[in-house]
Amino acid sequence: MELGERSYPIHIGPGLLSETALYEPHIRGRQIMLVTNETVAPLYADAVRNALSAYQVESVVLPDGEAFKNLDVLNLIYDALLKNRFNRNCCLIALGGGVIGDMAGFAAATYQRGVDFIQLPTTLLAQVDSSVGGKTGVNHPLGKNMIGAFHQPRCVLADTTTLNTLDSRQLSAGIAEIIKYGLIGDAEFFAYLEQNMEQLKNRDTATLIYAIERSCQCKADIVAADERESGRRALLNLGHTFGHAIETGTGYGNWLHGEAVATGMAMAADLSARHGWLDHADVARIDALLAAAGLPATPPDSMNGERFLELMAVDKKADDHGLRLILLDAIGQAKVCSDYDGEMLNETLERKPAAISS
Amino acid sequence: MELGERSYPIHIGPGLLSETALYEPHIRGRQIMLVTNETVAPLYADAVRNALSAYQVESVVLPDGEAFKNLDVLNLIYDALLKNRFNRNCCLIALGGGVIGDMAGFAAATYQRGVDFIQLPTTLLAQVDSSVGGKTGVNHPLGKNMIGAFHQPRCVLADTTTLNTLDSRQLSAGIAEIIKYGLIGDAEFFAYLEQNMEQLKNRDTATLIYAIERSCQCKADIVAADERESGRRALLNLGHTFGHAIETGTGYGNWLHGEAVATGMAMAADLSARHGWLDHADVARIDALLAAAGLPATPPDSMNGERFLELMAVDKKADDHGLRLILLDAIGQAKVCSDYDGEMLNETLERKPAAISS
Repeated sequence: MELGERSYPIHIGPGLLSETALYEPHIRGRQIMLVTNETVAPLYADAVRNALSAYQVESVVLPDGEAFKNLDVLNLIYDALLKNRFNRNCCLIALGGGVIGDMAGFAAATYQRGVDFIQLPTTLLAQVDSSVGGKTGVNHPLGKNMIGAFHQPRCVLADTTTLNTLDSRQLSAGIAEIIKYGLIGDAEFFAYLEQNMEQLKNRDTATLIYAIERSCQCKADIVAADERESGRRALLNLGHTFGHAIETGTGYGNWLHGEAVATGMAMAADLSARHGWLDHADVARIDALLAAAGLPATPPDSMNGERFLELMAVDKKADDHGLRLILLDAIGQAKVCSDYDGEMLNETLERKPAAISS
Repeated sequence: MELGERSYPIHIGPGLLSETALYEPHIRGRQIMLVTNETVAPLYADAVRNALSAYQVESVVLPDGEAFKNLDVLNLIYDALLKNRFNRNCCLIALGGGVIGDMAGFAAATYQRGVDFIQLPTTLLAQVDSSVGGKTGVNHPLGKNMIGAFHQPRCVLADTTTLNTLDSRQLSAGIAEIIKYGLIGDAEFFAYLEQNMEQLKNRDTATLIYAIERSCQCKADIVAADERESGRRALLNLGHTFGHAIETGTGYGNWLHGEAVATGMAMAADLSARHGWLDHADVARIDALLAAAGLPATPPDSMNGERFLELMAVDKKADDHGLRLILLDAIGQAKVCSDYDGEMLNETLERKPAAISS
């Protein structure tokens, strides 16, 4: 990642969790707080502890799931840091998926006004998305990721071996974000994914490494150009405004983030096609790739257009000029858009059949 | 304040709260959240609302006092922002003392990963200290200001008229921080305070403005040279390591911050004199000025040396190499110090009589 002073390395490959030499250059003091969850701890905490046997390693094990990404659970990390009298030279290590990364990262951003942290993402979603870019935070009952900070990790170790223990639903959720990078700005990568979805779903190591690398590069390029999300970084939110509404509307944790984003991308494609910006043939390719990845493309029956609009109104992409959406002109060509048609948006939200005969 | 991109104006004078033109250049959107407390709201909230009648002004009124500077009360600010669907272009306005400034500032630092805020400090302490420098945060039961972020306000309006409603204990607490600037690096200012303490305590406007200006300049010079507290900024913590221990040890809110800092400065002077670094005549001048300001200089009976050391061990100035203290070589000459004598520290903490005959 090239972010001036805050650049950091992202290593991708099998077995990296155990490689002491990859951690050492990024740890300033002696105190390490391993932040993980009940699912991941029994699988990988020992490997990390063994790699870091030269340090004082304490740990805090959080309950697993998006439902626990809140201020109360965050406070368990502060408690652990203070009970162990951790100082400003300490380092937090996030071992887990995006929820753990976001919470440990936010704890690191705010403990004593900022300490170091290292990301060890163990889900595909976290490896391709949340471990890159420095966004950290927790949810609020009224909105996802509403409380947070920008705080870059010292390094990221994406150990592909950890993906072998991921259930297939979680794997698909990660693939949703990979598809997103193709849709945003890389038509060639989208075509690669159409050709290689089977290998990806079968967790072929070389395919995984390539897909993760290309995704991280895609994200890094966008973030480096626009760290604070004033412009181009907003494209990374393709599918997210719809998706966050689904996550909030159905209760955090019922839909996986990647599943909600997949559906959100299908909705963005649908809305783009209603305006004549995106070909219907491209909509069909998008729907087909999402289906091949095992991802949903239709919002839950429990949410009507009104509920969507209510939840989308508090989205971070909303400002005084209304709600901006990320829409598509083509596969590989996304745009930030405020001048969409409100009636067409409503048709998408209400799942009205699109007129194909254009 | 000169902090490169993040420079901001500090205006000092009577009646500033009502001057619309001072706010306008610093407000980006239409949405303003006035964060204040139960004591200050009835006195000054209307003046601020009237000045900002062209905007959508919502407000959140928190309970008053250091005891409420915690994550739970912070959450009330997030609740108000989200219930009112405030977006990223919103602006928080902190109307109150240091607690309100720290909490509103931290809410601004973390709401949607960072929005604007303006400081309207209404206590002398906040006007000379907490509104300058960008430190924001809340307390944790195990340590003061342990959760926080660096976030600079867009501007500070220090309205000296608000000091007329301050009780004399709060006024003295603010004077403690003013004395601190003299002690750290400005012997001439210390002498000015010796000459003008009576006018300051009588709230003479010209004396107040001069003392606030010189204090802010002192702090701004130090902060500008060292925004992240790696070196010289640490001097601003003179009296604070002892003081924080007193505040935590006696329960937040029983000792005012300025009172605890005053006692901490007297303890730092005592410890410096035990080493022979500070003249006993200077110790006497310091004690006399603190007394003239109506400030305590002796720690509470409830705290022995052991309790002090326990609480000081989690101080942010502690690192892997032990606890650094800010000590004095002379009035106007402070230093960061790790090589003090542990036995002498214990004598200071236990209030052993100092051997004057050196």
